[in-house]
Amino acid sequence: MDYAERTQRATDNGLGDLLAAPTKNQISFAGGLPDPKLFPQQELSVAFAAAMANSTGDQFQYSDAQGFRPLREQLARLLQRDGVRATADTIAMTQGAQQALDLIARLYINPGDTIVVEAPTYPGAISAFDTYEPHYEGVPVQSDGMDMVALRRVLTERRVKLIYTVPDFQNPTGTVMSLNKRRTLLALAREFDVMIIEDAPYRWLRYNGINLPTLSELDQSDRVIFVDSMSKVLAPGLRVGWVHADAEIIKDLVALKTGADLESSTLTLRGVSQYLADNDLDAHIAALRHNYAQKRDAMVAGLRAEMPGTAIISAPQGGFFVWLELPTTINTDVLAREYKDELALVPGSMTYPLHDHHNGLRLAFTHASIDDIKTGCQRLGRAVRQAMANTVTIRNDAQAH
Amino acid sequence: MDYAERTQRATDNGLGDLLAAPTKNQISFAGGLPDPKLFPQQELSVAFAAAMANSTGDQFQYSDAQGFRPLREQLARLLQRDGVRATADTIAMTQGAQQALDLIARLYINPGDTIVVEAPTYPGAISAFDTYEPHYEGVPVQSDGMDMVALRRVLTERRVKLIYTVPDFQNPTGTVMSLNKRRTLLALAREFDVMIIEDAPYRWLRYNGINLPTLSELDQSDRVIFVDSMSKVLAPGLRVGWVHADAEIIKDLVALKTGADLESSTLTLRGVSQYLADNDLDAHIAALRHNYAQKRDAMVAGLRAEMPGTAIISAPQGGFFVWLELPTTINTDVLAREYKDELALVPGSMTYPLHDHHNGLRLAFTHASIDDIKTGCQRLGRAVRQAMANTVTIRNDAQAH
Repeated sequence: MDYAERTQRATDNGLGDLLAAPTKNQISFAGGLPDPKLFPQQELSVAFAAAMANSTGDQFQYSDAQGFRPLREQLARLLQRDGVRATADTIAMTQGAQQALDLIARLYINPGDTIVVEAPTYPGAISAFDTYEPHYEGVPVQSDGMDMVALRRVLTERRVKLIYTVPDFQNPTGTVMSLNKRRTLLALAREFDVMIIEDAPYRWLRYNGINLPTLSELDQSDRVIFVDSMSKVLAPGLRVGWVHADAEIIKDLVALKTGADLESSTLTLRGVSQYLADNDLDAHIAALRHNYAQKRDAMVAGLRAEMPGTAIISAPQGGFFVWLELPTTINTDVLAREYKDELALVPGSMTYPLHDHHNGLRLAFTHASIDDIKTGCQRLGRAVRQAMANTVTIRNDAQAH
Repeated sequence: MDYAERTQRATDNGLGDLLAAPTKNQISFAGGLPDPKLFPQQELSVAFAAAMANSTGDQFQYSDAQGFRPLREQLARLLQRDGVRATADTIAMTQGAQQALDLIARLYINPGDTIVVEAPTYPGAISAFDTYEPHYEGVPVQSDGMDMVALRRVLTERRVKLIYTVPDFQNPTGTVMSLNKRRTLLALAREFDVMIIEDAPYRWLRYNGINLPTLSELDQSDRVIFVDSMSKVLAPGLRVGWVHADAEIIKDLVALKTGADLESSTLTLRGVSQYLADNDLDAHIAALRHNYAQKRDAMVAGLRAEMPGTAIISAPQGGFFVWLELPTTINTDVLAREYKDELALVPGSMTYPLHDHHNGLRLAFTHASIDDIKTGCQRLGRAVRQAMANTVTIRNDAQAH
């Protein structure tokens, strides 16, 4: 039986490999995995035991498709502290942020509709959107976020439905969108009648400086759909994400969610709610920031020591990733494949919607230990030097004959 | 911003209301909710505590998109006992059976492709499929399953991609497909090159007689995609379902799942795996069967006492539902709306793909207590008698003038 037309590209995303645990002898800079030593195991155990003990049995029953209301109230308060005008009614719980991306594309995208993504962008977003067969326009990411001149050109030339952006510690480049560009983006979205997906999983993980306002806070015309997750600050294995938007949009996303999986696990949502009620999330996040800042420093130092002068290292102020641009003679698809037994890498081509850039690398610094980060940078240095040497040799050979 | 074309029908499914807990004074025969007194609370608490205690932290980390392998091995053994040739590689874990239906339609259905469903059928399946904009053909359900003559006619007239069936204790009619029809269905699927979705959430809940072989067991040509769930036998609030099919199909479904939500909660899957390792699932299911058989008997007796002679009551051998067909002069959409403060009902129109039948009712007997079942049947009896009286009066009035 023939598959649907969407299936070819949607099944070919390589995301499963990306999140795999490193094999023995392999150091992973690949998936955006938190440091397992920092999961609040004891606190989550206590919280889930309490959620389990509810005598009504409601924790095991079908429940609210929008997700356990007390948790939505807690999240709304957390977002309000950050300037986001959220209430329990403007939030819907999803299976990680990933499902939020799926449902938003499901709500808006007919085959062939245009989505603007940053180039490079989060590969999982491409994978979520692919199901709905959009046309992609990639807008280059500069050191202060999306290139707004290029964005205006795209919006002038094509009818665009959605703009997908990670304004804080962008995946994969680690950049932060400037306040000016945030305002420009919102003005453009209004002028051209486009919705914005603001994906903010790393926002709470800033290691220097202070956060700028979210697009959601700055938005005056209900154009921002804000996507967030507990995966980076608590635990990805819980699969707890959410989406905040205008209450009418939330109602429609919830209706679509019933078709997708009826609802999220109320037991899990109750467990997370209990965790938030009984623990100091800020203190936990402060510990994460302390740890990850050191790891970021270790990786940046390791790369500085090991990379050729022609490499560009983007040292981020927060988040999970360092972005590395190597000389264009180096193909990181080949590099990642050749060295996979000792290093797990995300080649930059995975992060471009058309997979047409081949000299970038996204390097996650959160999962490996500081020692492994050092060793991994050394391995990467050897690999890059070897690749450059090979390139040079072949060129000389070609000229000699 | 305009929504996608799929959105209108996909957001209008009413599923959220259907699974809502009954309000005070309301007796619910609506959603397929298990009896909350029968959740194995203590055993699940112990199992989840053990899953939480893993010192590696793997229970909180990103994991395998196909789902925790030891659980897949346990499920394969359970299915093998039932004659299904499952292995860990032919099973993928999903967010309840609902997500399996979403992913299967995602894999196969282009807009306009034909899906055959039983008429009536499970409303949630329609809701899962709607996202992919299929054309539906409904094949009537007889007392021994789908009408195979009607099915052959549809297959002859149209190119069909998928046939969706609940062969055991069908949702909503409670019927069991005969062995002859199972064989005919498989032969037709082979002749016309169609895939079959066998949805089997109620199969373990038989109250009389013995089970027939699954379509999956009888299948000789890898045409059956088998969908199953822990929702009815353990707890829906866990959202643990799975799909079993040819390993190549499973691989593609897993790739699509990474786009949809990356993966299921490994913590939850480990908790369920631990539960299965430490407990006697058969004994638990035996207790469910004992309880639900009594409730079924109470509902059938209540309906026999209360319904007019022109009503047809389908007493099922298992599952969650009694199906009631009232005289065609009675519109159960109106009845459900008018009596909603005292009775939660699923009008039959929700279970027809074109919503074009209005005299059926799906009555879930598993959630209410036996006393409430009796009281609910009395309320339903009053409502039906009132509706019949109203109908007659209006007719007489019309003739008088």
